[in-house]
Amino acid sequence: MKPYKKMSVEELREEHAKLLGMYDEAKKKGLKLDMSRGKPGKEQLELSMGMMDALTNVELTCEQGVDCRNYGVLEGINEAKRLLSAMIECPIENIIIYGNSSLNVMYDTISRSMTHGVMGSTPWMKLDKIKFLCPAPGYDRHFAITEFFGIEMITVPMTSKGPDMDIVERLVSEDASIKGIWCVPKYSNPQGITYSDDTVRRFARLKPAAKDFRIFWDNAYGIHHLYEDDQDYLIEILAECEKAGNPDMVYKFCSTSKVTFPGSGIAAIASSEGNLKYIRKQMSIQTIGYDKINQLRHTRFFKNFDGMVEHMKKHAAILRPKFEAVLNMLEEELGELDIATWTKPKGGYFIALDTMDGCARKVVAMCKDAGVIMTNAGATFPYGIDPKDTNIRIAPTFPSTEELIEACKIFILCVKLVSVEKLLDK
Amino acid sequence: MKPYKKMSVEELREEHAKLLGMYDEAKKKGLKLDMSRGKPGKEQLELSMGMMDALTNVELTCEQGVDCRNYGVLEGINEAKRLLSAMIECPIENIIIYGNSSLNVMYDTISRSMTHGVMGSTPWMKLDKIKFLCPAPGYDRHFAITEFFGIEMITVPMTSKGPDMDIVERLVSEDASIKGIWCVPKYSNPQGITYSDDTVRRFARLKPAAKDFRIFWDNAYGIHHLYEDDQDYLIEILAECEKAGNPDMVYKFCSTSKVTFPGSGIAAIASSEGNLKYIRKQMSIQTIGYDKINQLRHTRFFKNFDGMVEHMKKHAAILRPKFEAVLNMLEEELGELDIATWTKPKGGYFIALDTMDGCARKVVAMCKDAGVIMTNAGATFPYGIDPKDTNIRIAPTFPSTEELIEACKIFILCVKLVSVEKLLDK
Repeated sequence: MKPYKKMSVEELREEHAKLLGMYDEAKKKGLKLDMSRGKPGKEQLELSMGMMDALTNVELTCEQGVDCRNYGVLEGINEAKRLLSAMIECPIENIIIYGNSSLNVMYDTISRSMTHGVMGSTPWMKLDKIKFLCPAPGYDRHFAITEFFGIEMITVPMTSKGPDMDIVERLVSEDASIKGIWCVPKYSNPQGITYSDDTVRRFARLKPAAKDFRIFWDNAYGIHHLYEDDQDYLIEILAECEKAGNPDMVYKFCSTSKVTFPGSGIAAIASSEGNLKYIRKQMSIQTIGYDKINQLRHTRFFKNFDGMVEHMKKHAAILRPKFEAVLNMLEEELGELDIATWTKPKGGYFIALDTMDGCARKVVAMCKDAGVIMTNAGATFPYGIDPKDTNIRIAPTFPSTEELIEACKIFILCVKLVSVEKLLDK
Repeated sequence: MKPYKKMSVEELREEHAKLLGMYDEAKKKGLKLDMSRGKPGKEQLELSMGMMDALTNVELTCEQGVDCRNYGVLEGINEAKRLLSAMIECPIENIIIYGNSSLNVMYDTISRSMTHGVMGSTPWMKLDKIKFLCPAPGYDRHFAITEFFGIEMITVPMTSKGPDMDIVERLVSEDASIKGIWCVPKYSNPQGITYSDDTVRRFARLKPAAKDFRIFWDNAYGIHHLYEDDQDYLIEILAECEKAGNPDMVYKFCSTSKVTFPGSGIAAIASSEGNLKYIRKQMSIQTIGYDKINQLRHTRFFKNFDGMVEHMKKHAAILRPKFEAVLNMLEEELGELDIATWTKPKGGYFIALDTMDGCARKVVAMCKDAGVIMTNAGATFPYGIDPKDTNIRIAPTFPSTEELIEACKIFILCVKLVSVEKLLDK
């Protein structure tokens, strides 16, 4: 098909009338579809049903010799530390197991920095101005945390190799009020980009003006590959930071939310002994301990990291056709039109599509009117404002493939319609 | 037996020699006993083993129609709200279900006040001085939270009816830097005291100088009775505050930590809609949601609040003989000596004993040397300092009855020995 930009006004008007007719038809269907959140689908949840009775008639004492049904073992049972340190690729000494949510751990980490500083630094609440770098498009819930604490967010553009490191290096070395950066380094949310070796090494070698600058390395999709034989590889930043003489500069986060059950998984933080010392201090005040029974449930269910890897292959088998269905439809319907670009991730939970400038918001609104919920346009940027209004996050995991195809048709229709209207300057 | 204080020096010396001999014998046994923490014993944990497979082959969708295995339902599933609102005696609209630890909810509540204030007030971190009233003896982990945040703690004496309300009323109305008070209103930690109706009503009618003053009402032992036919009754403070025109003045906390499994239970906060609005705002930033599967597990296991009450009777049947064993031994061995007083709780997890002035620390140290771990002397007071050095917390729940008797013998021996030494001015 002819690229829209090469169409005459007449041709565009014709296309517009056709698309509008289709859109009006679609609206009549009264659809109720959701491509907005990164939730696993029902079929994926079934994969972990063995968890439900993983603890019947088994020994409930962990390797430390503590009955997991009772108080004790603040930092997590050894079995869970071993499993999640393999997942997050760090020595078992560098990990602490938390409750059900890595987002909560990130929130707590920032909250602690606000009230108590970082490794003895001035509490951030006592400083006039605090800033965070926010590679964008990024994860809306990260930005929500920094906004909640009144931390000024500075957008850093994403490239195909990760955040624009020229900008990161410059800002971090110049401005001591910049205290952190949000990163989803592997199969990033929403683009599915994995940071290149060079990007990770440049992160590790940052020379921050602020001593209490930290990289918030949210490795949410570290083992969430779509293809067994075509995986992205991310180099391990804790070791890189150590090598670069910045051992304390990074906090790594992970969870089993999209491995077992969202909301009922186990989360972890990995960092240097220097950081962990302060984290432990807070932890010992905040709680007597996290849910060890759930930790044990996870370790008994997976047995070991190999078991988890095998489990992830089953997730991949379910997700692959969904991602491919979306990508094929995008290619087929939009591939020649020159009105949108999109990422082709090898893992993670999202595809990101960029419309022509100033179209994203309208596309999402039109989708909604036709019964298809997309993530709010702008949500992938700090303060919910996408300066060019182009980025749309597609979350193909939750709907069934049939629903997904149905939703995608509407979405593509809306992208076309809004693009034609823009070209017609309507 | 003759009260020690009526003994002659000769008699005391004789007693001392006898006790010292017994103590040296006891030390040789190499005991390893623990009466320090409020942990349920193994037999109690067995009561909840039905939880382990409560979710096999059952519907996992909650009343809101959400699959509990997936994201969604921030504030807790209806079933859990109904169960815990019955437990905490509040309308279902006034409760939010959290994760595994009410201590964590209290920590988060204070942390939020530090960074964001209370219902729009100035963040406590931005104020020069913040103080909390700490009825003491009280719960060491409460005091640890306020200390961690640099909040000045003011000790308020406990009476047999709760905190000394004359002092509470005066301080709260005079000093706007007093922002809160810690309360364990029923079967208090460590004394097992239940606040009288008058005390609760005086709490509800406080006229705080600080608008953002809050009562932290940790109803940790609300349904933890020892006797079915002889229970303490606590009037419901949320309704009392509402009646008194102070609807927003109290946060109530509870959990199932000592109902099902410590660390693997579910926790809740109950408060006015005014407070909940701000709590929800934080929650929505802090997490996508708590462990709904564990919420469902609890509600399926208990079926309803009656089921929970029945369950608590089984706990009582296990705990009653332990409490009675300790109380009988104290009465028998110390009843006539006039060297100690102690509480006789009808519920909860602790007995508190007061030695003669200046003896507690020494008693606990001697116990330790003989292999019996007691809660640190002073732990029940702010900053770990018991001004008179008299209070010792006895936690009879965790050891078996045999171990308990063994440990109690040593403890009583140490109380006698240290008392004699004090009277001999050694």
